Amino acid sequence: MAVATQSVEQLCINSIRFLAIDAVEKAKSGHPGLPMGAAPMAFVLWDQFMRFNPKNPNWVNRDRFVLSAGHGCMLQYALLHLTGYDQVSLESLQQFRQWGSITPGHPENFETEGVEVTTGPLGQGIANGVGLAMAEAHLAAKFNKPDAQLIDHYTYVILGDGCNMEGVSGEACSLAGHLGLGKLIALYDDNHISIDGHTDISFTEDVCKRYEAYGWHVQHVTDGNTDLEAIAAAIQAAKEVTDKPSLIKVTTTIGYGSPNKANSHDVHGAALGADEVQATRDHLGWSYPPFEIPQDALARFRQAIDKGASAEAEWNQTLATYKTKYPEEAAEFERITSGTLPEGWADALPSYTPEDGAMATRKHSYTVLNALAPVLPELIGGSADLAPSNLTLMKVSGDFQKGQYHNRNLRFGVREHGMGAICNAIALHKTGLIPYGATFLVFTDYMRAAIRISALSQAGVIWVMTHDSIALGEDGPTHQPVETVASLRAIPNLLVMRPADGNEVSGAYKVAIENRDRPTLLALTRQNVPNLQGSGIDKVSKGGYVLSDCEGTPDLILIGTGSEVSLCVKAAEQLSAEGKKVRVVSLPCWKLFDEQDAAYRESVLPKAVTKRLAVEAGTSFGWHRYLGSEGDMVSIDRFGVSCPGGTAMKEFGFTVENVVARAKAL
Amino acid sequence: MAVATQSVEQLCINSIRFLAIDAVEKAKSGHPGLPMGAAPMAFVLWDQFMRFNPKNPNWVNRDRFVLSAGHGCMLQYALLHLTGYDQVSLESLQQFRQWGSITPGHPENFETEGVEVTTGPLGQGIANGVGLAMAEAHLAAKFNKPDAQLIDHYTYVILGDGCNMEGVSGEACSLAGHLGLGKLIALYDDNHISIDGHTDISFTEDVCKRYEAYGWHVQHVTDGNTDLEAIAAAIQAAKEVTDKPSLIKVTTTIGYGSPNKANSHDVHGAALGADEVQATRDHLGWSYPPFEIPQDALARFRQAIDKGASAEAEWNQTLATYKTKYPEEAAEFERITSGTLPEGWADALPSYTPEDGAMATRKHSYTVLNALAPVLPELIGGSADLAPSNLTLMKVSGDFQKGQYHNRNLRFGVREHGMGAICNAIALHKTGLIPYGATFLVFTDYMRAAIRISALSQAGVIWVMTHDSIALGEDGPTHQPVETVASLRAIPNLLVMRPADGNEVSGAYKVAIENRDRPTLLALTRQNVPNLQGSGIDKVSKGGYVLSDCEGTPDLILIGTGSEVSLCVKAAEQLSAEGKKVRVVSLPCWKLFDEQDAAYRESVLPKAVTKRLAVEAGTSFGWHRYLGSEGDMVSIDRFGVSCPGGTAMKEFGFTVENVVARAKAL
Repeated sequence: MAVATQSVEQLCINSIRFLAIDAVEKAKSGHPGLPMGAAPMAFVLWDQFMRFNPKNPNWVNRDRFVLSAGHGCMLQYALLHLTGYDQVSLESLQQFRQWGSITPGHPENFETEGVEVTTGPLGQGIANGVGLAMAEAHLAAKFNKPDAQLIDHYTYVILGDGCNMEGVSGEACSLAGHLGLGKLIALYDDNHISIDGHTDISFTEDVCKRYEAYGWHVQHVTDGNTDLEAIAAAIQAAKEVTDKPSLIKVTTTIGYGSPNKANSHDVHGAALGADEVQATRDHLGWSYPPFEIPQDALARFRQAIDKGASAEAEWNQTLATYKTKYPEEAAEFERITSGTLPEGWADALPSYTPEDGAMATRKHSYTVLNALAPVLPELIGGSADLAPSNLTLMKVSGDFQKGQYHNRNLRFGVREHGMGAICNAIALHKTGLIPYGATFLVFTDYMRAAIRISALSQAGVIWVMTHDSIALGEDGPTHQPVETVASLRAIPNLLVMRPADGNEVSGAYKVAIENRDRPTLLALTRQNVPNLQGSGIDKVSKGGYVLSDCEGTPDLILIGTGSEVSLCVKAAEQLSAEGKKVRVVSLPCWKLFDEQDAAYRESVLPKAVTKRLAVEAGTSFGWHRYLGSEGDMVSIDRFGVSCPGGTAMKEFGFTVENVVARAKAL
Repeated sequence: MAVATQSVEQLCINSIRFLAIDAVEKAKSGHPGLPMGAAPMAFVLWDQFMRFNPKNPNWVNRDRFVLSAGHGCMLQYALLHLTGYDQVSLESLQQFRQWGSITPGHPENFETEGVEVTTGPLGQGIANGVGLAMAEAHLAAKFNKPDAQLIDHYTYVILGDGCNMEGVSGEACSLAGHLGLGKLIALYDDNHISIDGHTDISFTEDVCKRYEAYGWHVQHVTDGNTDLEAIAAAIQAAKEVTDKPSLIKVTTTIGYGSPNKANSHDVHGAALGADEVQATRDHLGWSYPPFEIPQDALARFRQAIDKGASAEAEWNQTLATYKTKYPEEAAEFERITSGTLPEGWADALPSYTPEDGAMATRKHSYTVLNALAPVLPELIGGSADLAPSNLTLMKVSGDFQKGQYHNRNLRFGVREHGMGAICNAIALHKTGLIPYGATFLVFTDYMRAAIRISALSQAGVIWVMTHDSIALGEDGPTHQPVETVASLRAIPNLLVMRPADGNEVSGAYKVAIENRDRPTLLALTRQNVPNLQGSGIDKVSKGGYVLSDCEGTPDLILIGTGSEVSLCVKAAEQLSAEGKKVRVVSLPCWKLFDEQDAAYRESVLPKAVTKRLAVEAGTSFGWHRYLGSEGDMVSIDRFGVSCPGGTAMKEFGFTVENVVARAKAL
């Protein structure tokens, strides 16, 4: 077809396609197939439905768009550029996948304005969509008034076959159906091609029927390549179903327009090559050179700027009305959505003395959550079906359920991975909500991909993980974390906390609440631990500190975390009674400790004191950095066993006697 | 009801119930609810359908039973005891969940005879069931003759609500439907209770419809508490559907028989308490003291011994016929199923010299897999939709598909977690199959729960993980492992291999094939690496070795793994040219190295040489054990970036120049 005959809509769609084709070609790397096939649905969505302001990517009431099939990121970058996001310049598209660019190989919210969440690992994005829709539903229920709808936006997701094969999407979408999230609309790019070839080699289930089983509203657009009206009608119909999330299966051709590679795996994940790029230009009647956009197309896309400005202006009017009529709620709305913590919130954190009875740190966590719940209404979260064990229910609130979205206790079901992606999205809704998600520590393995993304995408989620060692006892090695804390400590930008007592739990939450750009993971005990002399809420913020000390230079430093700190204290008492000079260091968070200046670290762990014994009911993996070449460690470098927790601890050497003996052996 | 009025079937069912009740009561820990509710379906299954020989738990053609809802393990232990498994004595039931017992808190195949796989982490068991059924289908297609069916068994699974909420079950069951695994029969204990309470707080999807969407045959037994005939009819009907896996939803009452706790969360995960135990005895008319089984019930259960002996005898007859008629196949059958590797198989491993061109270790892996595929017909595996990237296809075989079960290339789809559980089960089918599963290294996070269980349950799976560092380049930080190798090294009983070149890849596979009781994970490069002077296949088995050395005591040791070993070699050449005495150590597998005797370790890393520089394109986490207090490390302790791999490596300091400079700084 000649350009002259192309409608402006067609020009727009082909503009998306060729920006993707040309950027991938220039980078000699990337995924052109999805943008080429999904350009029509993306154009219809962004042109007719999406409410957003390119000049204010952070407008609080914008519709959220998630490209769950993140490898097709050039689709998103093209849309952002075309609709007028300043940061996403033509030059930035030309720097696709290059060092220092803002157009990485998969969408990263922390690099690119207009990108809401970090996708690429498949299935995460659609699960993020569920979380974004939950955040919207919550804020709407909390703040909206009949005459002033402050929060009223849609969450749109484009997902692919890969996303639908991943279990995490099933978990989150089952929950979305249960919750009846009517403002979540997912467009499923049904192109029947994945990396291994045609999806019929492994994926022949009836996806639509599965989503119906989840309780979704489901439609099918059979010609997603050219039938723009059908796409628009389906999105419109989806919007009109307000009590169910919507899946629109849009059948497309991957790499549409490429005469020799369309509908094949060849177009999925590699540049087309110069010849095929030219053949595609010829086939689609595209005479523009790389990175040139026809004026008509650009003008159409850039209408988004005026439309967005109007939409935000109208919303500002609503906010003004709201402020007048509901000044108190308005103040709270502005405080929360701006991410400002209330004055003095930390005063609610409980503190303890050694006279307070021994208690499991999971119970301290419960106390803290319930102390903070009234003063931090932005706190929202729950457990993956372990609320009575994780102790994560906020007493001031009911359950977040269909029609009860103002509530803050989330019931995730046994869906750890979905929970993870949902919590990430609640944080990345960027409206001040502070999400937490809970399960047994060992089951972080089920959701590790989401925990990693919380760290990478700077999502300030609080991960509340209980039953943190072999001391959980009878459930046995499948449930006993051994290597788990170490494996989590290895993740960059994740604050792993293993608090020793009540004060350290309060301190850990203080760190978690204050760190809005990185997640915090709490490893909490099932068993009781005493409150320690020398612990303190603010000490936790340094990651490690001297809990108890001797006079002068110590002969020996005992280093513990969590439940083993009290073992160290008792061992130190015994050793001191025998005339040894012993220091006890509590090290609840390695990362924070490592971030302290050298002088502080030296003051806690002086190089000169080479006799060091660490005690942690987990693997020794990673501990050598603190032990030095002469140090030793009481650890467990094998899987645990099913038996009462006390027995397990004793059999594996977590006793005062053994700590004393091992210390003396140094 | 009085005992006198109970049928023998009822006595049998109540025997299961009270063994569970009493064992949990004695342990004061455990989950009585599921065994009480699922006892009828379990009884019908084991009484009328399961073919097994209690006196030979390892009979190769036994039906496999998996309790996916592993917390209900007393159900399984009761069945094993009642049907006559010697190891599972009454005493062992009385030692439920105690130190040194063979009745741990969740089923563990490595502790208890008759337990096929390790369950408890929810969803794993049903996914294991898919793997067991795949193993059966493969062996049947490979060996069976029209007149001699050597392998012809069912795989039965009992799963619960929690299993159905977990994404891993969805992944595996979607694949099972695709593959049409007709001999997989799953009984879904639909008791609508999970830990948080009634499942209607988070799980209201239509499970049956979802399984229909997967392509399963689905039935519903509405009264699973008392309608034994309906249960039997459903299992019979499921057996008759040979081209689809079957789900039988069996609606039950959790804790059936407990007058005050049935149908509530209270009966799920805690002992009933003495009063409620008595009330349950009264309610069910059970006058027997704890751990006493009525003779009629025991006699009925113990019929399994004769039935099993007959079944195995009949099968031995079939095997005898088979041996006569098909001696060659019979020899191969016995070799494989006994887990005996063929003589000289390792001769097929390719070896290399520095003159051989540089090649990515993922390509070496492809070469090795294809060298081994013809000599090791027990090798079976594939990738989670990354076959062209992971390079895991065996050229000698086609795809394992419905009706093509003799093939050995598995197509998992984008289902890493399902793949993991399936591979575990293929190994634990214990018929000599050697499974491998592949994805990008970073996506081990999606399947970490299954990898952990492979290590715990002593499943000799080979995990083939490619794209092993920031050097993968443009896909960016979501795809670039940084902390991943460290986090995997922390798992007990898992051999993590990061081979440096062709010889080390061959050596890593040699270790992997030989280690049938622990899994091996290969971390392989996307980019080319040179073949190194001094590398060797057999050297890998020691985990670490001196690759190149100086005369006399080294001034400095450079320690590398994988792609960074060649950097170390080049840096050593440069430093040597400047008169430094430098040793290069390749350390492909920490765990194997740590298992060597002290003398060997000292010979490789002499304590006296304190100047050590490690180079690995990953986090430094865990490395300090080899660095000592004076060592240093070239590592990357942050997330990567999207850009060409060479650029990333350069920008993060993985260059000869930087290694030389850092070495000199020591």
